[in-house]
Amino acid sequence: MNYLRNTWYVAAWGHEIGPGQLLARKLLDIHVVLFRDDAGRPAALLDRCPHRFAPLSAGHVDQDIVVCGYHGLGFAGSGACARNPHGPVLRNMAVPSFATHEAHRAIWIWMGEQDRADPALIPDLSYLASAPDTAFSCGNIVAKGNCEVFVDNIMDLSHTDYLHPTTLGGAGITGTRPTIVEAGDYVDVTWFAPNTRPSPLLAGLFPDLPATTDFWQRVRWFAPGVMRLTAATVAAGGAEDEALANVNAHIVTPETPTSSHYFFAATRNYGVDDAALNERIATAREHIFGTEDKPMIELVQARMGDADFWALKPLLLSIDSAAVRVRRHLAKLIEVEVAVGDLHGDVPS
Amino acid sequence: MNYLRNTWYVAAWGHEIGPGQLLARKLLDIHVVLFRDDAGRPAALLDRCPHRFAPLSAGHVDQDIVVCGYHGLGFAGSGACARNPHGPVLRNMAVPSFATHEAHRAIWIWMGEQDRADPALIPDLSYLASAPDTAFSCGNIVAKGNCEVFVDNIMDLSHTDYLHPTTLGGAGITGTRPTIVEAGDYVDVTWFAPNTRPSPLLAGLFPDLPATTDFWQRVRWFAPGVMRLTAATVAAGGAEDEALANVNAHIVTPETPTSSHYFFAATRNYGVDDAALNERIATAREHIFGTEDKPMIELVQARMGDADFWALKPLLLSIDSAAVRVRRHLAKLIEVEVAVGDLHGDVPS
Amino acid sequence: MNYLRNTWYVAAWGHEIGPGQLLARKLLDIHVVLFRDDAGRPAALLDRCPHRFAPLSAGHVDQDIVVCGYHGLGFAGSGACARNPHGPVLRNMAVPSFATHEAHRAIWIWMGEQDRADPALIPDLSYLASAPDTAFSCGNIVAKGNCEVFVDNIMDLSHTDYLHPTTLGGAGITGTRPTIVEAGDYVDVTWFAPNTRPSPLLAGLFPDLPATTDFWQRVRWFAPGVMRLTAATVAAGGAEDEALANVNAHIVTPETPTSSHYFFAATRNYGVDDAALNERIATAREHIFGTEDKPMIELVQARMGDADFWALKPLLLSIDSAAVRVRRHLAKLIEVEVAVGDLHGDVPS
Repeated sequence: MNYLRNTWYVAAWGHEIGPGQLLARKLLDIHVVLFRDDAGRPAALLDRCPHRFAPLSAGHVDQDIVVCGYHGLGFAGSGACARNPHGPVLRNMAVPSFATHEAHRAIWIWMGEQDRADPALIPDLSYLASAPDTAFSCGNIVAKGNCEVFVDNIMDLSHTDYLHPTTLGGAGITGTRPTIVEAGDYVDVTWFAPNTRPSPLLAGLFPDLPATTDFWQRVRWFAPGVMRLTAATVAAGGAEDEALANVNAHIVTPETPTSSHYFFAATRNYGVDDAALNERIATAREHIFGTEDKPMIELVQARMGDADFWALKPLLLSIDSAAVRVRRHLAKLIEVEVAVGDLHGDVPS
Repeated sequence: MNYLRNTWYVAAWGHEIGPGQLLARKLLDIHVVLFRDDAGRPAALLDRCPHRFAPLSAGHVDQDIVVCGYHGLGFAGSGACARNPHGPVLRNMAVPSFATHEAHRAIWIWMGEQDRADPALIPDLSYLASAPDTAFSCGNIVAKGNCEVFVDNIMDLSHTDYLHPTTLGGAGITGTRPTIVEAGDYVDVTWFAPNTRPSPLLAGLFPDLPATTDFWQRVRWFAPGVMRLTAATVAAGGAEDEALANVNAHIVTPETPTSSHYFFAATRNYGVDDAALNERIATAREHIFGTEDKPMIELVQARMGDADFWALKPLLLSIDSAAVRVRRHLAKLIEVEVAVGDLHGDVPS
Repeated sequence: MNYLRNTWYVAAWGHEIGPGQLLARKLLDIHVVLFRDDAGRPAALLDRCPHRFAPLSAGHVDQDIVVCGYHGLGFAGSGACARNPHGPVLRNMAVPSFATHEAHRAIWIWMGEQDRADPALIPDLSYLASAPDTAFSCGNIVAKGNCEVFVDNIMDLSHTDYLHPTTLGGAGITGTRPTIVEAGDYVDVTWFAPNTRPSPLLAGLFPDLPATTDFWQRVRWFAPGVMRLTAATVAAGGAEDEALANVNAHIVTPETPTSSHYFFAATRNYGVDDAALNERIATAREHIFGTEDKPMIELVQARMGDADFWALKPLLLSIDSAAVRVRRHLAKLIEVEVAVGDLHGDVPS
C-alpha cells in the first residue's frame, strides 16, 4: 500500500510515554520504538537492533539511551550508537530514527524524508492542549480497519442515525445536505439541522434542553487522517456561539493496510469544571466507539478483505461527497509524492 | 477451487432462520445473508452492502426488507433496493441475490446462473419432512475439511469399524464388497453383511436383539454433496422390510476449499413415537460425529493442506470404489459446467 | 528453506516415547510419527497414511505395527504395509520411513538419503548417557525461531550479561575475546575470564565460593545444531580440572523455517548424588530459558519475519565471530549437498 510519507502522523498521546518507558508501535507497517530523553523530548527509532534484530523495545532506557536487551548496544534518540560494550562505537552502527514533535498533547512522527520534517506543518489542534483537564478526555485503540475507512466514518456523519440511534443519532442529520469546502490543506463538511430534536445522549445529559433545537456538526479533515469534529446544539433559533458545543478530535494513523491506530479526544464549552460530567462523556464515547463504530468498521474491512476500495465499485450516494473528496485529496497527495520520488530516484519504500 | 455452481446446495436447516432473523453464512467462498420475508419465504443476498460494504447481516429485518446497520439502505429479497433514506431509490442500487427454495426441512440455495434455478432439481429428501418430530433430529456444524473429504467418509463406511469401533463399527462391513450403481444423477453403494453381530450402538439400544443379524447399509449420493444413508438390521434371515432401519441424511456444502458446512439428519422406522429414544439417538450421533469423524477429517485436511487430492497420489483400495466414482462424477459435472461457461464467455467466477 | 538433509537430527529424547506410544513431530517441515517396536527400537514414518492421508499418529501401535485409525491399514517401522483388512498387502502400499538411532538418551533421525544413515556420524554426547540420574536433567520445547538463531544464541555467550544479568551473566564474558577453532566437523569457541565474580546463579548455589574466580565457557558445535556447552568455575588461579563444571547440551532441530525444536540437557561434576541440587538446577534452567531466551529469540524472529538473515544486513560485531563461522560452515555443507544432489538429479525435496 502507498502511504503518504512526508507528513506528520500521531504516534501516541503524550501521556502514553512516561520517563524511562519504551513504547513499541507499528506505524505504516514499520516497527517503531518511542521513548523520551532526559529532557522529556520524544524520540523514535526503528524497533530493531541493527546487530541481531532484537526489538529495542525489549530493552530499557538508560539516561538518553535505549539499551538493547540482547547484547547491550545503546542508541541515542538520533539513532547513533552511543554504547558498545564489546568494542569501539563506529558510525555505521546507527539505527534508523524518525523525527518526532510533541504538540497538542500528542507525539507526532514524520516517517518520510527526514529533512522535510517541519513542525509548522502539524495541524492546529491547540484546543486539545488548552482545554482544562475537567473538560478533556482522550484514548486510543488499534482496530482492524484501513485508515481511510475510519476517515470515511467521520466524514459522513449520517451513519450516526443508523449505527448510534440511541445516543448520537436522531438529531436530523439524515436528509440534511452538508456544505463542503475544500481548501489547500483541508476539507470541511458542515451539516446544519434546524428545528430538530437533540440527540438522545445530549437529552440525557441535559434534561432541561428544549425539545426543539438547532444542531450543527462540522468536520475539518487534514491529511492524512486528522479530523476536528464540532457538534453544537442550541435552542431553535439561538446563535451558534451560545450553543452547547463538543469539539473533538478523531485521528487515524495506519498500522498496516488493514489496521489502524485510532486516537480520539473530547473537549467542550459547557460544564468545563465538571469532572463527573467529563467522566460521563468519556464513558459514553468509549462505549459508543467500542461497541458500535469499531465492530462495524472491522466488519466492513472483513468484507473488503485486501481489496482496494475503488476496485470493489462502491455504490456512491450523496452522503459520500465529503468522504470521496477526502479520498481523492489524499490520493492526489500520494500520487505527487510518488512521482517526485520517482524523479529523484528515491521513492520511500 | 472450482465448485459446481449450477446446482442446489443446502444453506441452512429451515429452523435456523426464524421470523425477522438474519443468518450470515459463507458458502462457496461467498458471504451470504439469509432471511425470511413476511410470508416466511426464504431469501438470500450477498452479505455486503453495495454502498460501503457493511455486512447486511449486521443490520436488521424490517418487514420484507433487510436494512443495513451502517447507513440505512434497505434491500428486498430480490436484491432490489427498497429504501434509501438519503435520496431516490435507483435501479443500480441492487445487491446480488441468490435463488432459494425451502424443501425437506432445509433451505436450498442456487449460486450459479439464476435463471436455471429449478426447484424440481432438488434431490428428494421427503422422508425428512414426513418423519414425525419424535423420529427426527438434525444438526449442523462447520468443520475444517474439504467437502469431498466429507463425502468420501460416507461413501466408504468401512471406516466405521476403525473410527467408531465402540458404536457403529464391528457389524461386518469390513470385508463386505459393496454393490455400486451409478446412474444419471446419483451413485448408490450398498453393503449387505449377513450373519453378523449388531453394532454396539444398536445392541445397547435394543438388548433383546438376536446376537446374529443381517445388516444392510446403503448410501445414495446426489451431486454435489447430498447423501441419504440407510442402515437396516434384522434377525438373520429376516426380510429387509422387517428390519430396524435408520434413514439419515448427510449433506455437505462448501464453505471454502478447506472447510465445509455439514448438515445431518436422522429418521427411523422404529419407536417413532419415542421421544426419549429420539434424544438418545441424537446425542449418540452428536457425540460420534463431534469426537470421531470431525476430528479425523480435520486431521486429514491438515495433512493434505491446500494440495489437490489427486496430486497427493492416494493409495486407492477396493473400499474406495464408491468414493472415487463420486469424485469422478462430480469432476465431470464441473468440467462440463466450466466448458459451457467458457463457450458462453460467462464463467461463474 | 534449504535444510541440511544428510545428517542426524535429534527427533526426541528417548523418554518421550514409551512402549506402545506414538509421538507426532514436525521436523524439517515434514510430519513424522515416532514409535518403538516390541524390542524397544525406535522407528519413524511419514505421519500420513498413503491411503486417505490420515495422520498415523491418530492411530495406535499394535505389536510392531502402527495401525491407522481411519481404515485400519498397518505399517511396520520399515514403512512396509503389514496389514490390510480390506484386501491383499501389496508392495506399493508402503509409507516413507526414516532411519533412526537411539544414542545418548536421544532418538536421532536421518531425513536425507536413507542408505547414508550411519550411526557412527552421530556426535559423541556420551556424557549425557553416563551421567547419573541425580546429575542429569533434560527437556525440550518448540519455539518460534529459526534454528540458526538458536545456535547463534549459544555461540555468542556474551548475551548472558544482558539477557540473564541476575543468573548467568556478570561473570566476565563481555570483553573477553574468545578463542575459536574450526575443525573438520565442529567449531569450538572458548572464553576464559580470570579473576571474575562467579555468576549470580552459581554464587546462590554455593555461598562459600570465593568472591574472585576463574571462569571458562566452551561450546563445541557440530552440524547442524548440536552444541556441548561447558561452564567451569574455580577459585582464581585454580586448575580447570578442579573447577565446578556444568556440561550441558543444546540441540536444535528445525520444525519449519521459523520454528525449532529445542532440546536441552544438563550434567555436572559436582554434587552428582544430590537430587535436590539437580532439581534446583533444572528449575533454574527452565526458568531462564522459558522467560528470557525463548521470548527474546521469538521476538528476534518476529522482527526478521520470513527474511533471510544475511538479506537483513546484520551489523556484525566481534562477538559474532563464532556464530558467523558456524553459519558459514553449515551453509557450505548445504551448498555441497545441493550441488551433489543436482549432479545426481535426486535433490531431496
